[in-house]
Amino acid sequence: MKVAGVPYRSVWRESERVAIIDQTRLPFEFHTLRLSGCDEIAHAIRSMQVRGAPLIGATAGFGIALAMSADPSDANLQLSAGSLGSTRPTAVNLRWAIERMTRRMHTIAPPARAAAAWMEAEKIADEDIAFNLAIGRHGLAVLRSIADKKGSVNVLTHCNAGWLATVDVGTALAPVYLAHDAGIPVHVWVDETRPRNQGLLTAWELSQHGVPNTLIADNAGGHLMQHGQVDLVIVGADRVTAAGDVCNKIGTYLKALAANDCGIPFYAAVPSPTIDWNIHDGLRDIPIEERSAAEMLTMRVMDAENLLGHARIAPDGTHTANPAFDVTPARLVTAIISDRGIAPASREGLQDLYHRKVARP
Amino acid sequence: MKVAGVPYRSVWRESERVAIIDQTRLPFEFHTLRLSGCDEIAHAIRSMQVRGAPLIGATAGFGIALAMSADPSDANLQLSAGSLGSTRPTAVNLRWAIERMTRRMHTIAPPARAAAAWMEAEKIADEDIAFNLAIGRHGLAVLRSIADKKGSVNVLTHCNAGWLATVDVGTALAPVYLAHDAGIPVHVWVDETRPRNQGLLTAWELSQHGVPNTLIADNAGGHLMQHGQVDLVIVGADRVTAAGDVCNKIGTYLKALAANDCGIPFYAAVPSPTIDWNIHDGLRDIPIEERSAAEMLTMRVMDAENLLGHARIAPDGTHTANPAFDVTPARLVTAIISDRGIAPASREGLQDLYHRKVARP
Repeated sequence: MKVAGVPYRSVWRESERVAIIDQTRLPFEFHTLRLSGCDEIAHAIRSMQVRGAPLIGATAGFGIALAMSADPSDANLQLSAGSLGSTRPTAVNLRWAIERMTRRMHTIAPPARAAAAWMEAEKIADEDIAFNLAIGRHGLAVLRSIADKKGSVNVLTHCNAGWLATVDVGTALAPVYLAHDAGIPVHVWVDETRPRNQGLLTAWELSQHGVPNTLIADNAGGHLMQHGQVDLVIVGADRVTAAGDVCNKIGTYLKALAANDCGIPFYAAVPSPTIDWNIHDGLRDIPIEERSAAEMLTMRVMDAENLLGHARIAPDGTHTANPAFDVTPARLVTAIISDRGIAPASREGLQDLYHRKVARP
Repeated sequence: MKVAGVPYRSVWRESERVAIIDQTRLPFEFHTLRLSGCDEIAHAIRSMQVRGAPLIGATAGFGIALAMSADPSDANLQLSAGSLGSTRPTAVNLRWAIERMTRRMHTIAPPARAAAAWMEAEKIADEDIAFNLAIGRHGLAVLRSIADKKGSVNVLTHCNAGWLATVDVGTALAPVYLAHDAGIPVHVWVDETRPRNQGLLTAWELSQHGVPNTLIADNAGGHLMQHGQVDLVIVGADRVTAAGDVCNKIGTYLKALAANDCGIPFYAAVPSPTIDWNIHDGLRDIPIEERSAAEMLTMRVMDAENLLGHARIAPDGTHTANPAFDVTPARLVTAIISDRGIAPASREGLQDLYHRKVARP
């Protein structure tokens, strides 16, 4: 999508390096980085310079390509895959991309691996965009049917599942972008998404594209739903279980409860690789990443001289907990919007959509 | 309660002035202010140097006393009452205290008003503490019964309904303080409470008193409840309707939904004046204060040199909405803990507790 009129992806190859947008400096500063090694890729994922499940997966693919350019041995392949895999425990796309790259490399003799790895990484990136455009088309039908009845559509979203969270287009925001481009009046309520405030990324990218949006505290969504100001909720997901449970940014469950209580449809929009067919009970079986206290106690701020820095927002020594994700049980999810279509959030619904038989646990 | 070993109230008379703790500087700096006029009191309420429904009411009482000291005329009484009443639209205690002071003044000739006003204001403050101790005793029984079964109690609270929100002792935290003082192992999950982060006040006052507590993002409470880490939720309220609806800080509704979904009891702890017998349908009839965008876009921070200031946390021009309260329908509230006792959150429950017959609307 566009930044100040110029089309960008959120990760791309530049000769023998990988370029990313440093998302920790957004929305204050737009800054791109060039990464030359797999370690730098791992650091970028861990520090959330790149974030969002699909983008993490695609970036890890490029990380393997950088690793194979440096040393295409089996030993380095294993080392790099392990290093990248340990950066973020929750996202299923990360593991999916690393396994796909590793499988591909194992079919190829070391001297040919670098070229094949770059090709495979770019293929993952291109496929992500194709997935998202397909999600957008399926979701567009939902938004259009609301707009046909009400004249406009108010979407609420949590965290950032826009183009910045993917290689391009976005997952949860794909239907929004397609609707906006189709001339449907769409407005987005954007949850701030503490503690990392990814809502600022969502507000920034929507505004860059011209989509009306309003930033709200994570606390406000329920009140807006009670008062008829939200037509539907669309979120992304880091993992969807075979039974339709949605693991997404912490706080998603609370919005799903409010949508359910207010009779508002709640959708998760995900590319197919986000569905983890091996996990059935999301609450029991998905490991939830616990992130650092620093995320609760400090914040990226801009001072009076427009200098970007970190400031303390709570005294040192404040005791905190910081779980990064929660699991919304399938019973609270109206449907999963995937690149394949829209399925009820249930084992049967997902199996029908994917023509796939998954044994019950 | 104590600050660094010294007992404090959150508002008190000092000869012809009113002393408050500047809560906008907590938890970074503990600083008291002396206010000499009703306008300064109105400013302190509007700017949230004092906040919390019971404390706002008590402080407004002192505001009328300052006004009567300056000019005890009917005209000034009306002017001061109007000025104080317009500071915060949602809190019922504010109007309750102003009406009580005004009624009292109308029974007294102007020359005797100042002395009577100081006396009445101090009476409101003392009564608040008595209310809170009574709330604490009733709530203590609830916490004790959980601790008897489980060995310890994990409370989740939202916003600050501790002693800083009242004249002393607190409402939601009164049972916690009494339990802690009685040797019951109690730990409090403290919601950060964006956008004004009153959770920092809660964490500060609990820590000053020695109560173990953990600050969490507003998004995290549902996840903790899903995983059995919360035994009960206790919040304060700005208004409770005759039917038991609870109007409290924005986001309360989301926690009540999660508690309900996870089978965890959800209590509102309020002094009797917080019950608004004239309002029946909280969602329809309670005006919800919309506060400034600045609360979403800037934050009180401490820089590397330990200087307290405001910094931008989102770019200028970001479009925001900032409703300050929401209404939790009575059906999601296990019970109201008041100074009179514990009542089911329903018209019948409250009427029985108060021996009061309220006509249905």
